[in-house]
Amino acid sequence: MISRRDFLRNSSMAVLGATLVTRVQAASLPEAPRQTKATMTPPLLPPDGRPYNPVVTLNGWTLPWRRRKGWKEFHLIAEPVVREIAPGMKAHLWGYNGQSPGPTIECVEGDRVRIFVTNRLPEHTTIHWHGVRLPNGMDGVGGLTQPQIPAGKTFVYEFEMKHSGTFMYHPHADEMVQMAMGMMGFIVVHPKNPNQYRVDRDFVFLLAAYDIDPGSYTPRVAEMLNFNLWTFNSRVFPGIDHLVVRKGDRVRIRMGNLTMTSHPIHIHGYNFAVTCTDGGWVPKSAQWPETTIDVPVGALRAVEFIADAPGDWAFHCHKSHHTMNAMGHQVPTMIGVDQKGIAEKIGKLVPEYMVMGEKGMAEMAAMAMPLPDNTLPMMTGHGPFGPIEMGGMFTVVKVREGLAREDYQDPGWYRHPPGTLAYELKDGPELD
Amino acid sequence: MISRRDFLRNSSMAVLGATLVTRVQAASLPEAPRQTKATMTPPLLPPDGRPYNPVVTLNGWTLPWRRRKGWKEFHLIAEPVVREIAPGMKAHLWGYNGQSPGPTIECVEGDRVRIFVTNRLPEHTTIHWHGVRLPNGMDGVGGLTQPQIPAGKTFVYEFEMKHSGTFMYHPHADEMVQMAMGMMGFIVVHPKNPNQYRVDRDFVFLLAAYDIDPGSYTPRVAEMLNFNLWTFNSRVFPGIDHLVVRKGDRVRIRMGNLTMTSHPIHIHGYNFAVTCTDGGWVPKSAQWPETTIDVPVGALRAVEFIADAPGDWAFHCHKSHHTMNAMGHQVPTMIGVDQKGIAEKIGKLVPEYMVMGEKGMAEMAAMAMPLPDNTLPMMTGHGPFGPIEMGGMFTVVKVREGLAREDYQDPGWYRHPPGTLAYELKDGPELD
Amino acid sequence: MISRRDFLRNSSMAVLGATLVTRVQAASLPEAPRQTKATMTPPLLPPDGRPYNPVVTLNGWTLPWRRRKGWKEFHLIAEPVVREIAPGMKAHLWGYNGQSPGPTIECVEGDRVRIFVTNRLPEHTTIHWHGVRLPNGMDGVGGLTQPQIPAGKTFVYEFEMKHSGTFMYHPHADEMVQMAMGMMGFIVVHPKNPNQYRVDRDFVFLLAAYDIDPGSYTPRVAEMLNFNLWTFNSRVFPGIDHLVVRKGDRVRIRMGNLTMTSHPIHIHGYNFAVTCTDGGWVPKSAQWPETTIDVPVGALRAVEFIADAPGDWAFHCHKSHHTMNAMGHQVPTMIGVDQKGIAEKIGKLVPEYMVMGEKGMAEMAAMAMPLPDNTLPMMTGHGPFGPIEMGGMFTVVKVREGLAREDYQDPGWYRHPPGTLAYELKDGPELD
Repeated sequence: MISRRDFLRNSSMAVLGATLVTRVQAASLPEAPRQTKATMTPPLLPPDGRPYNPVVTLNGWTLPWRRRKGWKEFHLIAEPVVREIAPGMKAHLWGYNGQSPGPTIECVEGDRVRIFVTNRLPEHTTIHWHGVRLPNGMDGVGGLTQPQIPAGKTFVYEFEMKHSGTFMYHPHADEMVQMAMGMMGFIVVHPKNPNQYRVDRDFVFLLAAYDIDPGSYTPRVAEMLNFNLWTFNSRVFPGIDHLVVRKGDRVRIRMGNLTMTSHPIHIHGYNFAVTCTDGGWVPKSAQWPETTIDVPVGALRAVEFIADAPGDWAFHCHKSHHTMNAMGHQVPTMIGVDQKGIAEKIGKLVPEYMVMGEKGMAEMAAMAMPLPDNTLPMMTGHGPFGPIEMGGMFTVVKVREGLAREDYQDPGWYRHPPGTLAYELKDGPELD
Repeated sequence: MISRRDFLRNSSMAVLGATLVTRVQAASLPEAPRQTKATMTPPLLPPDGRPYNPVVTLNGWTLPWRRRKGWKEFHLIAEPVVREIAPGMKAHLWGYNGQSPGPTIECVEGDRVRIFVTNRLPEHTTIHWHGVRLPNGMDGVGGLTQPQIPAGKTFVYEFEMKHSGTFMYHPHADEMVQMAMGMMGFIVVHPKNPNQYRVDRDFVFLLAAYDIDPGSYTPRVAEMLNFNLWTFNSRVFPGIDHLVVRKGDRVRIRMGNLTMTSHPIHIHGYNFAVTCTDGGWVPKSAQWPETTIDVPVGALRAVEFIADAPGDWAFHCHKSHHTMNAMGHQVPTMIGVDQKGIAEKIGKLVPEYMVMGEKGMAEMAAMAMPLPDNTLPMMTGHGPFGPIEMGGMFTVVKVREGLAREDYQDPGWYRHPPGTLAYELKDGPELD
Repeated sequence: MISRRDFLRNSSMAVLGATLVTRVQAASLPEAPRQTKATMTPPLLPPDGRPYNPVVTLNGWTLPWRRRKGWKEFHLIAEPVVREIAPGMKAHLWGYNGQSPGPTIECVEGDRVRIFVTNRLPEHTTIHWHGVRLPNGMDGVGGLTQPQIPAGKTFVYEFEMKHSGTFMYHPHADEMVQMAMGMMGFIVVHPKNPNQYRVDRDFVFLLAAYDIDPGSYTPRVAEMLNFNLWTFNSRVFPGIDHLVVRKGDRVRIRMGNLTMTSHPIHIHGYNFAVTCTDGGWVPKSAQWPETTIDVPVGALRAVEFIADAPGDWAFHCHKSHHTMNAMGHQVPTMIGVDQKGIAEKIGKLVPEYMVMGEKGMAEMAAMAMPLPDNTLPMMTGHGPFGPIEMGGMFTVVKVREGLAREDYQDPGWYRHPPGTLAYELKDGPELD
């Protein structure tokens, strides 16, 4: 178990600079821990307040709070951040407390929360608490329910979390730009009774899309459809951590979508049911069995299943371009076109020219192609049996036997699991 | 209560020119009232026939009928129209009876309806009664179930409304063009028993998208994806009326989608359930709690909630570009790019040039930028607390206490409600 | 009833060339029938094993199997194919056993299946059995759960079909390319008890989209959004067979989506409910009444209704561009623009030039416009009452009385049904 004290000592966190705090009434502001890496932190076990089973934020972290006279106080700082999208590529985004997406806010049904929002962006902002039912003045719609929070200022939101469920936060100010720049975070409100809706493993992440030209760092914010980075929590394959669970675990995966199109998230080897949306818990009578759940824009879906089948199960968006990284969309089809001799001729004119695609594109995944700086290959990744040929919204649910609870609280686990495949490969007979 | 007689006297209505009618058997054709403004008319209380609780058409109106020997007779005229999209912009569309969308058709389960459709377009048309179960010959599919209705001719549809529910009408002839030009209207069939599925407030509108180049008036009809006007009933924010309800009302909002993509319609401050589709009423056991409902193309969704939380609640499509108006999609990202001196240099070459976006785009909403004629700003609108920075599919559900039924039948109410905010704003402590 | 022996004698099938088979252990490989036409074959009544009510594959066929020691053995050959998209256009795709999509695999809950997959493509491949719950090593994800199947090799998948339901197969290797080239097929697992979930007519097809430039044959594989051929089982209207049923039949239509966007499939004259997804059977309590079902990408939906209303009922995707064929998307809007004299002037410069669209586009459907080779008209088809003006994802559910079971097992039936319209057309009074 990791206490809040340990948490703050973590080398990748930094407490908000003391100089700034001393210039105002320091006593009234809670600490604002920051995270500088895109690694998955262990679940934050609640140090005080009502008990609950904490969630795991995919390649993310949970925001610590302080308790003050019956309130849980959180401090979010809206600011420019650098997010590693995957090893080899960094994006210049806007986020909260050092990362994009911001930290997950966890609390319990009935908790009274006070959330300080400090604006360190170059323009005004607000925060809307998507799905949370609260007083109108706390709803965070700039111009309509509050004045915008000017650059350099702090605004305080106060409300009671009346309903358990699955929510998110994002600005409602210059909204198209600020969401396209990565401003978003997850909210989980646990039931008062920790045995209600209980699961063994509870993962959360947001779906976000960016349009960053190969070789550049900043998203094009006015793009409506042709994004080239489709992410789980602003990470792409192979930079997305695995979802590691024990055989027999009841698993919940909660997803929110802040892109511009729906994402049909598909699991292999299992079927699941949607048990919660941003509107609340779905009654059993209304649940459908699914292997693909289409998460609409501006909505959240929690799915649940019993992890009874061991193995490495692909978990991905089923729009096939969303499991690709940048490049590739301007590539003409060369299938069936004999290119012998072409490369040689062009090679004299263009150094590093490669003819690709005459026989499909799989050959691209197997070779090292020269790429612009800060650019990921279109499809990549290696598994135990060779190239996986994926990118974007793709990861693996690893279901393992004999996994102790302690094991999978070690963050290293999520990235380099020691498991072995449960099934042996059979060679087929050769034909010719 | 407004009688049909009063309704027809309304200055914004015009009865079909007498000259045309006298050239045929005038007795056989019902009047065809026309509407020339995009204002919301009060609910049309039924002057005869079975009683029901009428709907409110957002920025629209309901078509009066005449009773003849047990039939309700309606008269639709398909024709070119001019629709004000919002103050400052008009579109040249095709619609019905003077507006696009056409008037809402309301009737009661068991009613026998006779609908005269007169074609004043330059090409043939038909009407398909989407969702209504009727005899095959009345289904309105040009070529398949009937000949196309030539320009200048009238076709008569006759059928019984066997099922209560939420439907729409649109052509099934040169369909891509005619729907892209705005030909559509809403149909509500009320239950025989007015207490079945009863609500206090019942709003209806259609989702439509247009691609009208800045400075022009006619939609590009062959566009498939990149629309620039995303509308509720062919209006965009800030031209969309509010949805005004009393605290405690049971509210229903019915929406149909005739664009080319799904729209995740999100409400703030509430959760709701889908209670009706174009297929019928959704049983309680199958309903999900939601705050965002993704309305598929070619489908209708009615959502319901109890308006127990007073305030001004945003209600909008959650695809962030759909709450923007035209322009903006070709704007390059200038975030983080220092533009000092650039404007000055360019200003000498290009009069009225503005550097925008270095710090985000919020500054654009606050200033008056020169725009081409007949073009709306990308994001605009002012609320009680400043610029709202929205466009497109955005409006506000205003939940008020002490609102008399008479008040909210005054159409002025919907546009300039006198309400005050329920919650006071708190200033946060300053940081530096 | 058609026996397997008859089936293999069918002139449009060809058994895999004997030379290849003799070069390996011929005994171990089942036959691999191939289909060279895009015609709908009659349902394949099971020659052995547990009885079931076979499905009808729209413009497709079912793969025969052989029984060997308690296993059902199937043989799929991944290979380049030529698919007729509609009369007048052929596409060079990749598929299975001579066609794209590949043959439907039908079996029964509890069956143990052994599926030989021979790779005759120029690059490696795998097959993922979407929705089937099976051992991890059989899941078909190249690199992750098995090595890729190299060109020229055969791989054997073995698993038990533990659950009845509606599934599909497709590669999980160079996935974007291989699915964009048409590699996909349907899987139906019937319940052990043939009276469970029983229907009278059970249709299956996959939704696929291609981007083939007018005049060319090979899809552009890197396209993400702007496809120009939207297909049911890789056929477009008017090349899609009808869905013919008897009045009173309980009808099921199962659809899977392997395009890049959701498809709202709409039926006229009926409402229906989703009864099965790729996750399993939907309980009655959770079913919604619908007339349009939005099929998400990477998901399957089975809908059911009682065919009690005779007639010709349109059945189509409700995104209006998806009922259009190629061309048209670059056409500027000429509505309201007087073009008199223009055609004459241009005609002198450009032979065969046509001015179109001044009055809408319906005129285009009525005339024979010169088109590039291997290119379909944008909207076409003739019904009993004139031009239908459709393309793409459009067909007709024909509900007929007095139709014997034998009749509708004749494949000719699906294409040229003798039925008459149930309702007579009424002329409306003329206006001027």
